[in-house]
Amino acid sequence: MDSDVTRPPVDFRTEPSRYRHWRLAFDGPVATLTMDVQEEGGLRPGYELKLNSYDLGVDIELYDALQRLRFEHPEVCAVIVTSGKDRVFCAGANIRMLSQAAHGWKVNFCKFTNETRNAIEEATTESGQTWLCAVNGACAGGGYELALATDWIVMADDGTTAVSLPEVPLLAVLPGTGGLTRLVDKRRVRRDRADFFCTVEEGVKGKRAVEWGLVDEVVPRSRLEETARLRAGEFVARSDRPAGVRGVALTPLERRLEGDRVTYGTVTCAIDRARGLAEITALGPASPPPADAAGVLALGAGFWPLALARALDDLILHLRTNEETIGLWVFKTAGRADLVEAYDRLLDERAGDWLVREIRLYLRRTLKRIDVSSRSIFAVIEPGSCFAGTLLELALAADRSYMLDGTLPGDGRPEATIRLTPMNFGPYPMVNGLSRLASRFLAEPGRVDDLKGRIGEDLDAGAAAEAGLVTFTPDDIDWEDEVRIAVEERAAFSPDALTGMEASLRFGGPETLESKIFARLSAWQNWIFQRPNAVGAKGALQVYGTGERSDFDRRRV
Amino acid sequence: MDSDVTRPPVDFRTEPSRYRHWRLAFDGPVATLTMDVQEEGGLRPGYELKLNSYDLGVDIELYDALQRLRFEHPEVCAVIVTSGKDRVFCAGANIRMLSQAAHGWKVNFCKFTNETRNAIEEATTESGQTWLCAVNGACAGGGYELALATDWIVMADDGTTAVSLPEVPLLAVLPGTGGLTRLVDKRRVRRDRADFFCTVEEGVKGKRAVEWGLVDEVVPRSRLEETARLRAGEFVARSDRPAGVRGVALTPLERRLEGDRVTYGTVTCAIDRARGLAEITALGPASPPPADAAGVLALGAGFWPLALARALDDLILHLRTNEETIGLWVFKTAGRADLVEAYDRLLDERAGDWLVREIRLYLRRTLKRIDVSSRSIFAVIEPGSCFAGTLLELALAADRSYMLDGTLPGDGRPEATIRLTPMNFGPYPMVNGLSRLASRFLAEPGRVDDLKGRIGEDLDAGAAAEAGLVTFTPDDIDWEDEVRIAVEERAAFSPDALTGMEASLRFGGPETLESKIFARLSAWQNWIFQRPNAVGAKGALQVYGTGERSDFDRRRV
Repeated sequence: MDSDVTRPPVDFRTEPSRYRHWRLAFDGPVATLTMDVQEEGGLRPGYELKLNSYDLGVDIELYDALQRLRFEHPEVCAVIVTSGKDRVFCAGANIRMLSQAAHGWKVNFCKFTNETRNAIEEATTESGQTWLCAVNGACAGGGYELALATDWIVMADDGTTAVSLPEVPLLAVLPGTGGLTRLVDKRRVRRDRADFFCTVEEGVKGKRAVEWGLVDEVVPRSRLEETARLRAGEFVARSDRPAGVRGVALTPLERRLEGDRVTYGTVTCAIDRARGLAEITALGPASPPPADAAGVLALGAGFWPLALARALDDLILHLRTNEETIGLWVFKTAGRADLVEAYDRLLDERAGDWLVREIRLYLRRTLKRIDVSSRSIFAVIEPGSCFAGTLLELALAADRSYMLDGTLPGDGRPEATIRLTPMNFGPYPMVNGLSRLASRFLAEPGRVDDLKGRIGEDLDAGAAAEAGLVTFTPDDIDWEDEVRIAVEERAAFSPDALTGMEASLRFGGPETLESKIFARLSAWQNWIFQRPNAVGAKGALQVYGTGERSDFDRRRV
Repeated sequence: MDSDVTRPPVDFRTEPSRYRHWRLAFDGPVATLTMDVQEEGGLRPGYELKLNSYDLGVDIELYDALQRLRFEHPEVCAVIVTSGKDRVFCAGANIRMLSQAAHGWKVNFCKFTNETRNAIEEATTESGQTWLCAVNGACAGGGYELALATDWIVMADDGTTAVSLPEVPLLAVLPGTGGLTRLVDKRRVRRDRADFFCTVEEGVKGKRAVEWGLVDEVVPRSRLEETARLRAGEFVARSDRPAGVRGVALTPLERRLEGDRVTYGTVTCAIDRARGLAEITALGPASPPPADAAGVLALGAGFWPLALARALDDLILHLRTNEETIGLWVFKTAGRADLVEAYDRLLDERAGDWLVREIRLYLRRTLKRIDVSSRSIFAVIEPGSCFAGTLLELALAADRSYMLDGTLPGDGRPEATIRLTPMNFGPYPMVNGLSRLASRFLAEPGRVDDLKGRIGEDLDAGAAAEAGLVTFTPDDIDWEDEVRIAVEERAAFSPDALTGMEASLRFGGPETLESKIFARLSAWQNWIFQRPNAVGAKGALQVYGTGERSDFDRRRV
């Protein structure tokens, strides 16, 4: 993984028939997702996935399963995660994989796994699909972090099964997928108990695990499965997911990778390696939306907002993982704002439909993924664009936006406008819990309410600037130079400094469990991932399993 | 600074007659603090403090001035910060100092400067002493961050004076003293404007600076001083600080450094280098408190809570800066709980008195300093201790606590007890805005209210454990082994991993401007301070001023 350039790009697209590490089984409203990692099935050579440890490939399948449970299985109201191995639930992220991985790979891997665990929680809280966990063997590190992302943990009380976060004592790194944050902020484990727990390799089991709030209940191993089903049944009873409707098949996502172009039906991407940027163009819908939710279901994966979410999602993951030197994403759009608005109105008015809800949530997750990407983001708003509603969120997610005031010589198209829709006012919160508009106008919250009165209005550059919705509005004389210089300057700055700056400026206002995971926890982890005590020749991550002892620099920083 | 061991320890004690970089002047209720840094006055050799740039020595004086303004000048209701240089306000932290400094020195320096800026804001919000800033020349980086910590920024509109945060474009690091957070969270500058501002070396001046919220007003240079005085007068009119009372002289703090012992009148510290720990014992008061606020004033710096705050504060700063390999602080106390409680009752009942308020706030700042220290903290509660009220906060600040259940053979003293006082229920919030008790019982907020009913009660080990106030309560048979093993284990872990873990577990619940600065911003900065793009041989911090160009690894992490 230190020589990623010579390897084929990582593909995030998969489907259950190709899973090597997970089994999905269905029993009416309860699905069981069984982790059974193939030791030889690592995404890259050089390590064995023993003891249900995982790498990015394992997590890609988990992510795919999560998506399919949401869309293809409206009938599933509870998902039991368990292990197919005999005495181990999951040993967490594979240590040899981590110790061989380049810094950037580790960080990107943790980000993706975090996003998937956040999506598990979102399924529980937003989608009526509650995840729970039957811990049927040692549950360590990332294994316990997976359990923590579910909303009910039942553990076998068999004298050996325990939960643990042994990263600090064993590897000199942090639990990297939200474990520390979920301990004190989700499960609200008392901080001194959390401190002790995180320093004990063997973890905590039995009654103490319940008393300390580390798991929800322990039962004899013989009753584990039965108890999990009982709890699942309780969650099913409380779910608002529909019975007796069919789901939407997430048909294979069509994508063409040709040289420096990536093309989907609803999104295109052109990579400019010389300038270090990717120009990402979201294509508006070609035709009006169906009249109702039944029409949405009939279109399925072909329904424009769902197709857009899938394409954007895949593209972001592709660029993050396979194009790390492309530091600037320039968002553009092309199409008709009135059609985008029509789709948004459907998404708004049919929000109660299970499928429309899923599509809205998928767009929300995808936009969140953009926010937390360690790339600079510009939006460029020109004639022919359709930055309306859902697509306007791309401009609001940008670190800055440029909107041409007027037209360019020789371009007969009307000047660019942007348009607000109801979808800009709440359905797509950022990880800080606020809409992008609310995050933008922290200083003047009243502006958000004022803007509600302008939904549907075409705002030209002057009006958009006046409304505070765009950053700069050069006219045709300045346009080319101003955008070019901004792009060139960005490319000249240190990628690391930009990452830290953007992570600090994007998320003003409140913090949430999610934002704490991406900011506080990930930032500390990234720092530790750079420190010789973890990754140096004598660092704990490097010597693990060799029988050698780590040699720590004892200075506290 | 890469060979700190050979240098004399940094001493944080100073007084105005010894200042080299600041001038304090008084005009009734308005003080003016003028920055006029001596180029040759660096704390360490190897750099010149040009253009009012600063190093730790400059900031130690600022900190001292802040403390004296609070205690020695009850009459001062507004503090104007300005520059004594001709065309420069402040160029920020000295870059050559930073480029020569070891990683730990940089991080510790930023932490101290952050704490001082937070204390400036606390003076404004809690102490009726509002800080404002008259920007009379270039105000860059840490200079602007100092201005951001004040509550009113008036800037000269002279065509050249500007505010800027040039760290990212110039040095490939972040503004390290809260600048990014204060931009979007305190001043609520729109995030896209903040993005632009942080990438423009020359900064923003004049009307745009006001329109974007970067400063509060611009005036012709000729009217700068007059305007600052006018605003100061407005703050004075709103202040509740008393007129016509005398202050308390912060007389020289007596401290003995003898071998591995540090001794103050109210605190002792014994360093055990073999075990990598410092045993810090807070000594309870020797006699009852005075009857009223007049008695407190008469005692002045000799009043036990103030003496305690000063000693603890100095000790923490000393240990952080001069004892970086001592990774574990073990807090103990010795004395009479009834006397501690008597002092606490005075602090509680006379909270309206200006001096009592200052003392409470100083204790609060000092306890916060402990919370954000990158050291493991244990509390050990034994017979003879007095963990009551204010001193109990030390145990509540600890990552974990050990309380002996019963007595040790041959020790005739009664078993240890702990005692709650009103001071445990609000006056000492952590940086997350919650009391340590509220942070502890996030899962059961009702427990905090229940505990109010037990104020003044002596809780033995059993009762303390039952109440959730201590972590472990071994009896005499297990005591020695259990504490010893815990200490030894802690010393064996990676110091970096512990720092990240503790920073993640200590601050459950809400986030504030302060907690965001210490967690999100500092964690990212620390990461960047490790990255070759900043500190490598061709990193921006290293090549700055050499005429060489930085050579960045363009991979985004």
